Amino acid sequence: MTEPAPVLASGVDNERLNAQLRFLLEADKLKRVLRQNLLVDGSRRENSAEHSWHLALSARTFAEYAPEGTDIDRVTEMLVIHDIVEIDAGDTFLFDQVDAETQDERERERAAADRLFPLLPEDQAAHARELWNEFEARRTPEARFARAVDRLAPILANWHNEGGAWVRFGVTRAQVTEKVKLIAEGSEALGAYAGALIDDADRRGYFRGA
Amino acid sequence: MTEPAPVLASGVDNERLNAQLRFLLEADKLKRVLRQNLLVDGSRRENSAEHSWHLALSARTFAEYAPEGTDIDRVTEMLVIHDIVEIDAGDTFLFDQVDAETQDERERERAAADRLFPLLPEDQAAHARELWNEFEARRTPEARFARAVDRLAPILANWHNEGGAWVRFGVTRAQVTEKVKLIAEGSEALGAYAGALIDDADRRGYFRGA
Repeated sequence: MTEPAPVLASGVDNERLNAQLRFLLEADKLKRVLRQNLLVDGSRRENSAEHSWHLALSARTFAEYAPEGTDIDRVTEMLVIHDIVEIDAGDTFLFDQVDAETQDERERERAAADRLFPLLPEDQAAHARELWNEFEARRTPEARFARAVDRLAPILANWHNEGGAWVRFGVTRAQVTEKVKLIAEGSEALGAYAGALIDDADRRGYFRGA
Repeated sequence: MTEPAPVLASGVDNERLNAQLRFLLEADKLKRVLRQNLLVDGSRRENSAEHSWHLALSARTFAEYAPEGTDIDRVTEMLVIHDIVEIDAGDTFLFDQVDAETQDERERERAAADRLFPLLPEDQAAHARELWNEFEARRTPEARFARAVDRLAPILANWHNEGGAWVRFGVTRAQVTEKVKLIAEGSEALGAYAGALIDDADRRGYFRGA
């Protein structure tokens, strides 16, 4: 592979541009990170890059269900960068552990953020880190809405795929319901909708008996 | 597959929400549209959904190279939706034809836009169509910058992949140079950078002799 360093264009800050380029080339690796969820048509596992695209599209499509005053552009930006840490940390399947957000996962993701964002020029690295921290902390309406959209996506896909990953991994209704709280925190309407999907999925027998 | 119609949540306009959902489920098919370009690591062909994600990230990373006053949020939104028409129309490889934007391709894409965007509620369909028309027409700074970022991406990838699709398809320097004009129209700095990449690629022998 050709390394980005040697190309010099006139009239631009080449050091800055090469740093941005290195970040973008590195970010490309997110296309190789596989999630447990399948595509909507069930044909293969989804990767985190295409997942991030679908979330950005979903956030804009569902914008009206965010609390009034939520900055959807910031939500979109957050969703575009939020999964980049998975390049180093991998995707954690929501039902792999009793407590999905274990200390270990958090530490791996923080180490990934420490390595990946500083590939960017300093001001942009700080901005990306701020967005990622905001997403993780879930204290702003933007972060809560972004998390809600992120959490709703696999529920939609599994429901649409006759149970999908729920069936494959023997997930119970209680496990899914626990995860839905976070959707309602970001959007009342999407929380209600997720609840209705789970009721329907339960009627269809997609969950493992308790 | 479970059809979205029957689920009814309380407190939301279910007809509207179901239309949005149908659009998002349909949009998921963009993950199955393959481009001729490879991932940066050369491991496989890129799909249009993960490509759209990388473009949104690139637009934000390269924002400073857009003409002053360019609305990068609108650029991002445009890049998130611009390839959706490929679900019906397929991806057209830039060097497949003498004139890449043939009448036939335009008609297929227009027909795709006519089918896909109206899956959304009327107001959102009109907005998506407006964004797509703007991207295609290349008259606003936002559209021109979005197109520049879109056009730069395969140049970066091919240059990084020791010629990539240029080598595989026997592309000449003149063919690539022709495509670069559009980058300079959207961003002087990115145009200069693309020119430098092509000079370098030429020195490395990545182009077919004229």
